Amino acid sequence: MQPVTEHVDRLVCSACGATFAPEPLHTVCTHCGRPLLVSYRLEALCDRFRPEVLAGRVRSLWRYAEVLPVPFDAVRSLGEGWTPLLPQPRLGRQLGLPNLYVKDESLNPGGSFKARGLAMAVAAAALRGVRQVGLASAGNAAGALALYAARMGLSALVFMPEETPEPAVWECRLAGAQVYQVPGTIAEAGAAFEAYRREHPEVFSVATLREPYRVEGKKTMGYELFEQLGGRLPDVILYPTGGGTGLIGMWKAFDEMEALGWIGPERPRMVAVQAAGCAPIVRAFQEGHETAEFWENARTLAAGLRVPKALGDFLILRALRESNGTAVAVEDDEILEAMARWAQAEGMLAAPEGAATLAALLRLREAGWVQPEETVVLFNTASAHKYPAVVHRVLSRVEATEIR
Amino acid sequence: MQPVTEHVDRLVCSACGATFAPEPLHTVCTHCGRPLLVSYRLEALCDRFRPEVLAGRVRSLWRYAEVLPVPFDAVRSLGEGWTPLLPQPRLGRQLGLPNLYVKDESLNPGGSFKARGLAMAVAAAALRGVRQVGLASAGNAAGALALYAARMGLSALVFMPEETPEPAVWECRLAGAQVYQVPGTIAEAGAAFEAYRREHPEVFSVATLREPYRVEGKKTMGYELFEQLGGRLPDVILYPTGGGTGLIGMWKAFDEMEALGWIGPERPRMVAVQAAGCAPIVRAFQEGHETAEFWENARTLAAGLRVPKALGDFLILRALRESNGTAVAVEDDEILEAMARWAQAEGMLAAPEGAATLAALLRLREAGWVQPEETVVLFNTASAHKYPAVVHRVLSRVEATEIR
Repeated sequence: MQPVTEHVDRLVCSACGATFAPEPLHTVCTHCGRPLLVSYRLEALCDRFRPEVLAGRVRSLWRYAEVLPVPFDAVRSLGEGWTPLLPQPRLGRQLGLPNLYVKDESLNPGGSFKARGLAMAVAAAALRGVRQVGLASAGNAAGALALYAARMGLSALVFMPEETPEPAVWECRLAGAQVYQVPGTIAEAGAAFEAYRREHPEVFSVATLREPYRVEGKKTMGYELFEQLGGRLPDVILYPTGGGTGLIGMWKAFDEMEALGWIGPERPRMVAVQAAGCAPIVRAFQEGHETAEFWENARTLAAGLRVPKALGDFLILRALRESNGTAVAVEDDEILEAMARWAQAEGMLAAPEGAATLAALLRLREAGWVQPEETVVLFNTASAHKYPAVVHRVLSRVEATEIR
Repeated sequence: MQPVTEHVDRLVCSACGATFAPEPLHTVCTHCGRPLLVSYRLEALCDRFRPEVLAGRVRSLWRYAEVLPVPFDAVRSLGEGWTPLLPQPRLGRQLGLPNLYVKDESLNPGGSFKARGLAMAVAAAALRGVRQVGLASAGNAAGALALYAARMGLSALVFMPEETPEPAVWECRLAGAQVYQVPGTIAEAGAAFEAYRREHPEVFSVATLREPYRVEGKKTMGYELFEQLGGRLPDVILYPTGGGTGLIGMWKAFDEMEALGWIGPERPRMVAVQAAGCAPIVRAFQEGHETAEFWENARTLAAGLRVPKALGDFLILRALRESNGTAVAVEDDEILEAMARWAQAEGMLAAPEGAATLAALLRLREAGWVQPEETVVLFNTASAHKYPAVVHRVLSRVEATEIR
């Protein structure tokens, strides 16, 4: 089995532009330490990889075989990707946005969008002979890693903050991963993982942007939006941004789609949504910086947004600016309110990170930043079922309001 | 908007054969009180509703429009159906069954197979002017009802046993349903719901087989198996059986597919899987009865299998016998062990009801009832994330074993 598909050209450093052959196993750029991205021979694909060819294909992210680095035959899929894009008619009416959608990533294996990237990264590592994979995670990535490692016969170890929502911890244990919980945020968990790896270099890191393939799984969200909107992109995308792989991935997908002739130079306005208690990207965006500073004392109930520093910060900020997008921080109270509102208006069981995009849209709509005729896509990144403690807080609020 | 699609012919009583026009709103047979099933003009469809026409269609259960009672335009989908059929290579190797699959219904909205039937029943009721829907449920059906009622703008009320797993209760509350918890099993919850309805006849019951449309949503699992196996049915289907709507639905789908000319008279051997602490169908099957007796003191950790008496028992038993199938009861301990084993071997986060099918397969394989070359499909009906207390029991066992 070839470890890469035929259309992979090389790996390119996202910062310094250095290039590398795709073999053997790569981590980050050996020159500057920044993330590597996969480059495809898109010119050669233009004539035969057209949207029309997708019609009869598998209903998972593997439908985009030509622009994926791993051959589908080599993967033990759990059905990741091709999540529904759902119109939101009632919310849309309330907000005066008739073309409002949610991309519901909770319908992925394990209940979160992390399935996409980890399916790809674990398969890519396994094909190159890796037997042990690990990462630090705020929760959902750890769960997804554990599932795909079990599925593909690798052993997994995960480092998570002590405050990680319980379901993410027990799905790891259920799937047989070794679990370490560390005081602090994902930053401290990441440091503990790196310390561990110094003693155990045989453990390959699939942490965010520490290898080139997770982002290739995530980018398929961008291809799916195009297909599911009938061959166009939305005007505005609101994306909850912790490590930002999804946003970076979609931005890369749009560039590929332009090179393939599917779209022109126009892009959706990308909106990074963060929590007010941990908003490094929002601060850097507002202050005009190219990278983000470490956010001290990060605090939010949205575990996936408790990321004080993202390795891909410069890529996120570049996408926001090049797209005429923006960055919005919302309070935890707004997130709780959005969870209740979304469930009651549209039957959507959103994760707090997903609900943050609805809270951000309320702000942007009020500020006039989004126009009524625009097509707007919110991302719900996981199921509310993975956040029982947060759901309890939502229900307490709802019931307190009812009693009043 | 027409409340039914053009191919619906009439409703037929599953027991006495009495027929009814599809309008207005129907519950059960007015002659004998047994379930009504929808009959389509399949002869008229033979020429144009062929498997080939499905290729480019929507990736949800709505792809089978011609044999569904509700027009897709009338539905606010949450992306229900078209769940993956996943090969199980490692388990298959362990069991000497190279053609082993799981139909993973946890990738439905709300994380359970109940989405299929309730999407259909709520839409059908809404089209006929119903504003309030309700049911008694062991958990997942209540959650699904709450989500679809919220999505379609109806109010919902649900009656559940006190011991219902918490996530099912709070998803109902989050989506704004009225929740009543009742001591005992779903039998007591059902009685409480019926008592409530005597006072509030405006609440329409979408309880299992109390109206004709839920089974139409569930039957799509049968159509999907055919398509996902490349135009054939498996040899054996193991299905966790509480109320049994899914098994009855698939059996109906196979009859329709034969009338449409998609398959011949052959059928998969259907296996109803129950818990040893509540196995009315298994007992009736073994004793050669046509209906099942109420099971006293029902007890099992698999909440969805704690159904002491199913309205459709005679239909379930008929399908088991006509298919040369069987009925198997498994102990709670076997379920716990199967949950751990499945997660570690294939990354599958199975609900206890789903894991019961794996436990049953181990028994059947040992007994020589399943042959090595046969294609076998297990059904995982929901995500383990909806059963935190059961997962804790699994993890305690796993860790106790590790320490020993």
